[in-house]
Amino acid sequence: MADDALFEFLHMEMVAHIYKEQASRAETEQERTTSVSILEGMGFRVGQGLIERITKDTPGFKDDLDVMKFICKDFWISMFRKQIDNLRTNHQGTYVLQDNKFALLTQLSNGKQYMEEAPKYLAFSCGLVRGALCNLGMDSVVTAEVSTMPSCKFQVVIQKT
Amino acid sequence: MADDALFEFLHMEMVAHIYKEQASRAETEQERTTSVSILEGMGFRVGQGLIERITKDTPGFKDDLDVMKFICKDFWISMFRKQIDNLRTNHQGTYVLQDNKFALLTQLSNGKQYMEEAPKYLAFSCGLVRGALCNLGMDSVVTAEVSTMPSCKFQVVIQKT
Repeated sequence: MADDALFEFLHMEMVAHIYKEQASRAETEQERTTSVSILEGMGFRVGQGLIERITKDTPGFKDDLDVMKFICKDFWISMFRKQIDNLRTNHQGTYVLQDNKFALLTQLSNGKQYMEEAPKYLAFSCGLVRGALCNLGMDSVVTAEVSTMPSCKFQVVIQKT
Repeated sequence: MADDALFEFLHMEMVAHIYKEQASRAETEQERTTSVSILEGMGFRVGQGLIERITKDTPGFKDDLDVMKFICKDFWISMFRKQIDNLRTNHQGTYVLQDNKFALLTQLSNGKQYMEEAPKYLAFSCGLVRGALCNLGMDSVVTAEVSTMPSCKFQVVIQKT
């Protein structure tokens, strides 16, 4: 599966590069926020492009939950070769997507000292989800958290307009 | 094939980001060189990682030509799902690898006005080849050129040490 590795390695390089570049540029607390938002923005645009391809032969969606199920299954498989393990919702626009073995975290050691590094490797993917949803007409805020590596949870809050 | 697209889109974003970042940083002629060398460096490290995986069950190579054939076939397929279309050598350490439909150029329109953009999208791949060869014990200089899109030629010159 060297093909997956090509994407994963490039992703690692990109994260490393952006953090290094931002660190050399600014010395304020803001620098971390900037790196996260650059990565999130890249993910957003990639997510928009991908969802367009994947849904081109898909009939319309019934409702928001239907869209989220598509994201958890078809979209996730096409990117990470597995589906989301658990989807929960409060039926009021908040969804929690849990991936028990998230591809972009499996390259990291799971010692506790790496836990604080984890958010770096989730920003791009938060953007992917937000970009995909945006193209399907749903504005959202997407955040991620890791409790035990390499499992992680994405929280999606749909913005009512 | 959304999976390929994930890598291809990320690669496009990365190229765009690095060129933008360098342009905002420096206003000299050097900026272009810097972007190319950042991308080449990323490709180098990714190439090193990939070749390690791909060759882990491969017996040793007979000679340099044998290595180059492996790069043109197994390595290229694992990254771009096709092999190099033509390999030429002068038997003195110079190899020309021609890909008639290079994956990272197919996203670009093939109008003449995009020709000068093409080298941006080849730097990472030059690094991939150099990194792979380096891990197999061959120091090299790798350059690329495009005559008609989306076909391109990689020239590999092995450095004698």
